[in-house]
Amino acid sequence: MPSFSRSLLARSLGLSSLCVSALLPVMSFAAQATPPNIIMVVGDGMGPVHTSAFRYFHDDPATPQVESTVFDRHFVGRSSTYPALSQGLVTDSAASGTALASGHKTYNGAIGLDNDQQPVESVLEYAKAVGKSTGLVVTSQINHATPASYVAHVPQRRMYNEIADSYFDAKIDDQFKVNVMLGGGWQYFIRDDRNLVEEFQQAGYQYIDSYAQLATIDNHNVLGLFADRGLPAALDEANPDRLKDMVQAAVSRLETNDKGFFLLVEGSQIDWASHANDVASTMAEMDDLHRALLWLETYVSQHPNTLVVVTADHNTGGMTMGERAGGYRWEPAYLRQLSASPRTIAVTHAEQTWEPASLNQQLGFTLTKEEMAVLQPAHKEGAKAFYQAIKQVVDQRTNTGWTTGGHTGVDVPVFAFGQGKEQFIGQMDNTDIAKKLFAMLGRAPENESNKP
Amino acid sequence: MPSFSRSLLARSLGLSSLCVSALLPVMSFAAQATPPNIIMVVGDGMGPVHTSAFRYFHDDPATPQVESTVFDRHFVGRSSTYPALSQGLVTDSAASGTALASGHKTYNGAIGLDNDQQPVESVLEYAKAVGKSTGLVVTSQINHATPASYVAHVPQRRMYNEIADSYFDAKIDDQFKVNVMLGGGWQYFIRDDRNLVEEFQQAGYQYIDSYAQLATIDNHNVLGLFADRGLPAALDEANPDRLKDMVQAAVSRLETNDKGFFLLVEGSQIDWASHANDVASTMAEMDDLHRALLWLETYVSQHPNTLVVVTADHNTGGMTMGERAGGYRWEPAYLRQLSASPRTIAVTHAEQTWEPASLNQQLGFTLTKEEMAVLQPAHKEGAKAFYQAIKQVVDQRTNTGWTTGGHTGVDVPVFAFGQGKEQFIGQMDNTDIAKKLFAMLGRAPENESNKP
Repeated sequence: MPSFSRSLLARSLGLSSLCVSALLPVMSFAAQATPPNIIMVVGDGMGPVHTSAFRYFHDDPATPQVESTVFDRHFVGRSSTYPALSQGLVTDSAASGTALASGHKTYNGAIGLDNDQQPVESVLEYAKAVGKSTGLVVTSQINHATPASYVAHVPQRRMYNEIADSYFDAKIDDQFKVNVMLGGGWQYFIRDDRNLVEEFQQAGYQYIDSYAQLATIDNHNVLGLFADRGLPAALDEANPDRLKDMVQAAVSRLETNDKGFFLLVEGSQIDWASHANDVASTMAEMDDLHRALLWLETYVSQHPNTLVVVTADHNTGGMTMGERAGGYRWEPAYLRQLSASPRTIAVTHAEQTWEPASLNQQLGFTLTKEEMAVLQPAHKEGAKAFYQAIKQVVDQRTNTGWTTGGHTGVDVPVFAFGQGKEQFIGQMDNTDIAKKLFAMLGRAPENESNKP
Repeated sequence: MPSFSRSLLARSLGLSSLCVSALLPVMSFAAQATPPNIIMVVGDGMGPVHTSAFRYFHDDPATPQVESTVFDRHFVGRSSTYPALSQGLVTDSAASGTALASGHKTYNGAIGLDNDQQPVESVLEYAKAVGKSTGLVVTSQINHATPASYVAHVPQRRMYNEIADSYFDAKIDDQFKVNVMLGGGWQYFIRDDRNLVEEFQQAGYQYIDSYAQLATIDNHNVLGLFADRGLPAALDEANPDRLKDMVQAAVSRLETNDKGFFLLVEGSQIDWASHANDVASTMAEMDDLHRALLWLETYVSQHPNTLVVVTADHNTGGMTMGERAGGYRWEPAYLRQLSASPRTIAVTHAEQTWEPASLNQQLGFTLTKEEMAVLQPAHKEGAKAFYQAIKQVVDQRTNTGWTTGGHTGVDVPVFAFGQGKEQFIGQMDNTDIAKKLFAMLGRAPENESNKP
């Protein structure tokens, strides 16, 4: 690793990959719009319902119209997400991350490998090989499935330590693959058997471990880890702009390269909140991503040589605005005043005596007798049962439905703005997104069927 | 009724509406692409999952790739569907039909009236007023909510008789509003108190009451009713092309007008099958619509002065490809061999002794012992319980989830092909679809806020 044909060709010719890339017949692909900067944004688990529902969550009820979101302003297409067909029709985040990153269908669990377990180049790796700076900014651990699909090549997504190791060990033309890495992951980067933070520091990386230090990022490479694994849930963060602040800091470092940059951004915990069937946290994670997108919308208006593509790897949870018993309504008002995530509310209350007044305050609405009759017995059972009961009350208030704690097979929306956005209009497959980005970056199309 | 400002203006000036339309400052709207023919297709209840799932239902498993559908080839945008906001965020088919037809948000239940119960002109009515021929082809009764929204103006969708009466009574410039009407509805058009079929015949309409007679349609106006209320479920029809045949017959009549035509087509029972949480019938109704769209795709390639817009009025059922207990899979193979609709299978078997062999044959797969243990007790309880049990077995086989027997608030997909299709790219509201069609037809925009 990396054992890509281009790299192999480079070695056999005694040239750098960069030179080989220059030798490839790329003119027809690079000729039109080659944006110097590409920002790929993944809302993990963000299906069609998430972006529709967010519009109403985000809406200002004081105005007579429904306010538009970044999603509304830049919706252009939709993408199928199925993995290698031998796996069936519903993907996991590894197979879909690999498809988005490399243009290859693969099996569920695979990181940067095709269905025959052969490594496949990612758009981030190709961007690095042609001289761009690269970054990844996520709210999960930085070695979670989606970011890993852009950097690592391992047979199973659960190989977190191997993925973290490869962030340091695997290089392109003797350079580290990723210039800026921001997210969580102390437990994988500072281990008994290996301290990758020290290794990165010794190799010249700036290391930061608090959001406040984002302001200190200069022109060095940067590793920023802010949590043991994933970052806190958006609802449990003091700063509602934590993802936006990380994106802004990363861009400020990456844009100093006059060959441009490739940045992967992931709103990772939309997926986690939807796996938990927690609509309040799902909307808060959507808001976290949306605030970052608002900043990117402004950035692109000032830097029109930048393309932002936003999509999801799959849909999670089977969430619906409308549920069996609840009639024709969906009421996001009850999701706007929580002072912490339902999980945190449940954990903190489970350690205390039953106290509805503080619960009302944290939820942002006054519980009815019927709701208290659901919550009080669950409170006695402990944090897990209480969390379930809180979600049940919130689902009934809002009339939210769910079909699964896993993923579903529906196509996901695609949004694009900036230079080259018109390439993403209409129906596509998740592999097409990588192929379009490769073409924009100037890589010749692979001479093979991409049939899974 | 019709009490539109244009008609009022016409009367006060002693002119026909047609002349007034010609006097309006329409140049800037009509200047670009004014397709002589507009075919508006509504898949009732057809949300994002329906068209994604249909791709896999429609796929030929004998080929290594996933075959594209008409939906895949012509996906261009998506539309929000909320009714007048005083109603909440989840629409019914009347409010959304009125929005699609007229560009006005209204209350759930309203047919062709705005939120203040004032009549609003539909694109079909405007098309008629400017000299086009008009038609409606549906698989519900022809006076059901969606088609009614294009023709009638009544305060509640359940006023079926009043809607049917208005199809005959309300005219535009002394002409009937709709030249070709095909679908179900004997019980509303042949009543004890009024025989609208005879009245239409006396007014020069050809009346047909069997699909075979579709071939006899000539240049007369036509009323074709083929069922008491809605048509049989697609799975219970001998001819898998019943909607396509009706559309083809309607177009052959409408295209004789050299001023062009407006045709509304509705795959009405996608909604009904999804209300019933019956995935087999849902996919069959999708196939019924898709076969009609395949024919329209060919028609437009031969008649490029035609625009086809396809969308839904809302999503029904909260269907998902993936369900809580079933893992990451969705298996449409079990939906491809049914010899009748699950409802019909249930009703016919409920009248017989328990006979698994014939059940296997009708379902198209061999029931397991576990499945028979679900079905046999339900069979004893009667048709309704047996229908529920069959759906449960099919949901488990395919791993299909549902959240509701009603509607949900997710945005619906928009597809377009032919002249002017580029007008429908991106995010829109259901009212925008009517506004775009009015603009294409040359009507000046209404000088008012369309805020609900």
